[in-house]
Amino acid sequence: MPLSEFDLIARFFSDCGARRADVTLGVGDDAALLEVPAGRELVAAIDTLVEGVHFPAGSPAASIGHRALAVNLSDLAAMGAEPAWALLALTMPRAEQDWLSEFADGFAKLARAHRVALVGGDTTAGPLSVTVQAMGFVEPGTALRRAGGSAGDVLFVSGTPGEAAAGLEVARSAHPPQAAAEAAQLRSRFEFPEPRIALGRRLRGIASACIDVSDGLLADAGKLAAASGCGTEIDYEAVPVSTALRTLVGEERARSLVLTGGDDYELCFAVPVAKLAILQRELSTAAYPWQRIGVLRREAGTVVKRAGTVMDFSARGYDHFA
Amino acid sequence: MPLSEFDLIARFFSDCGARRADVTLGVGDDAALLEVPAGRELVAAIDTLVEGVHFPAGSPAASIGHRALAVNLSDLAAMGAEPAWALLALTMPRAEQDWLSEFADGFAKLARAHRVALVGGDTTAGPLSVTVQAMGFVEPGTALRRAGGSAGDVLFVSGTPGEAAAGLEVARSAHPPQAAAEAAQLRSRFEFPEPRIALGRRLRGIASACIDVSDGLLADAGKLAAASGCGTEIDYEAVPVSTALRTLVGEERARSLVLTGGDDYELCFAVPVAKLAILQRELSTAAYPWQRIGVLRREAGTVVKRAGTVMDFSARGYDHFA
Repeated sequence: MPLSEFDLIARFFSDCGARRADVTLGVGDDAALLEVPAGRELVAAIDTLVEGVHFPAGSPAASIGHRALAVNLSDLAAMGAEPAWALLALTMPRAEQDWLSEFADGFAKLARAHRVALVGGDTTAGPLSVTVQAMGFVEPGTALRRAGGSAGDVLFVSGTPGEAAAGLEVARSAHPPQAAAEAAQLRSRFEFPEPRIALGRRLRGIASACIDVSDGLLADAGKLAAASGCGTEIDYEAVPVSTALRTLVGEERARSLVLTGGDDYELCFAVPVAKLAILQRELSTAAYPWQRIGVLRREAGTVVKRAGTVMDFSARGYDHFA
Repeated sequence: MPLSEFDLIARFFSDCGARRADVTLGVGDDAALLEVPAGRELVAAIDTLVEGVHFPAGSPAASIGHRALAVNLSDLAAMGAEPAWALLALTMPRAEQDWLSEFADGFAKLARAHRVALVGGDTTAGPLSVTVQAMGFVEPGTALRRAGGSAGDVLFVSGTPGEAAAGLEVARSAHPPQAAAEAAQLRSRFEFPEPRIALGRRLRGIASACIDVSDGLLADAGKLAAASGCGTEIDYEAVPVSTALRTLVGEERARSLVLTGGDDYELCFAVPVAKLAILQRELSTAAYPWQRIGVLRREAGTVVKRAGTVMDFSARGYDHFA
């Protein structure tokens, strides 16, 4: 006997993620009732993952559950917000218990790590697709935005972008990779990205602008710059390339992936020169890995410079409809 | 040249719906920044419409945009909430300007009617599917819930359920209907349902429990009753049957659609006997059409009585996975 829609929701999602005292009414009614703390702004994001577009068919269910929440928490991180609640709209062809159990586990584990409660949802039949809406709080006036940067501000990126794109290639490949340990590490970076919540929180008051890197570093840095009324100049030699990435795909391809690969969910942020000392003093790169990669400049557009020469990169990044 | 994802969002959704002073930052950044009024609980719902499941392929884009928001506002109505903001996750195979323009118009018209601002979204490539997340406010402790009813409470439904299901049959039929005016009226009930926001607001303090009728009156009344630890007895002769519905499908089929048809987005609510006089005095049926249809009872389950005889109806309603 197939589980009914209502049973499914009750079974896997009624107590998923963190328990929070600010949830007056969670999963199971027509809507959730939530208490936003006094003196906080609400921060709200929504993102969809579609099978065959955002993850390969047959991806582990735990990874899909994790990523669906992670991409939204990454949006909250880019605003400097503290996450609190999520709603889940899950569309799938069939209701399979094992798949649902793994999906819910992947979602719940990340949710608990960031004290996020799943407070509502909708389960429907259709091609596999997951939409998560995430909410959090920020102290009024302190949220990071894409706009806010100025020409001369220094541009940074967290972590090691490019790894997720290489990890997706590993996941898609029919052949076992040569460097198995590195391949597994990069694949995990695609399947279980870690939203930079702590870094985003700490950047409030330091960064002048911030965006999460979902469509590729050049594309997203370009969006931050455009929103700030600037362009950006990226230093090809400065972008961080991880040893695993270099080992798996070689130096040139690695740098290309760092600049144009998507799905990393790192933060790209601008810091005014006057605040660089605060960044260096308060955010150790051991705790919050970040790397200077370029500057915002007055001229519009994105350029990548290598030893003084402008390189040719498409700055559009990942575009579903192109 | 195809529009890029970013251009699409900017073009059709950057100023969609109502403008509200409590939106600090709307569409265009990683997340929206919103101000919840002091002394209000936040109410949050999410619902997905999938082509071929929740609406026929080739449905008018304006109807899809309207319904995607309407089903969520209906969830807020069932809680007695005042709507404020929405986020939109739109997945579609191709980015077609005409379709997007009509979709956005359908969404925006309903949004403006209820003072809802579209504050964020995500556009992705994939099979046509629309997820909307809606938020609103309610005075603490006054929200309507499914739980809260007691045996003996009288059960009501608003409007004329069953019309949307008949309207969907009209939309799906290849043959022109006999009663063209009635058919057009019912089709419009499916394609452009009106969420019962004003009624939901007025029912606070009067209704003991409330649910919106999306899966069919019997099924949703059954869910309200179960959440309240009760069963329900519905009076077959008492359920409201509209003239248009009766004209189009005949008396017996009409009553069956009223009880089991989905997609009406009316409210089903319970009122304690002690508050019936308040309901009758304060909510004129001219302004807020409602009809007494049965009672909550101690025994679990849903029964439909006709002239004292129990009728056999499936009380499960619409279930995508059954």
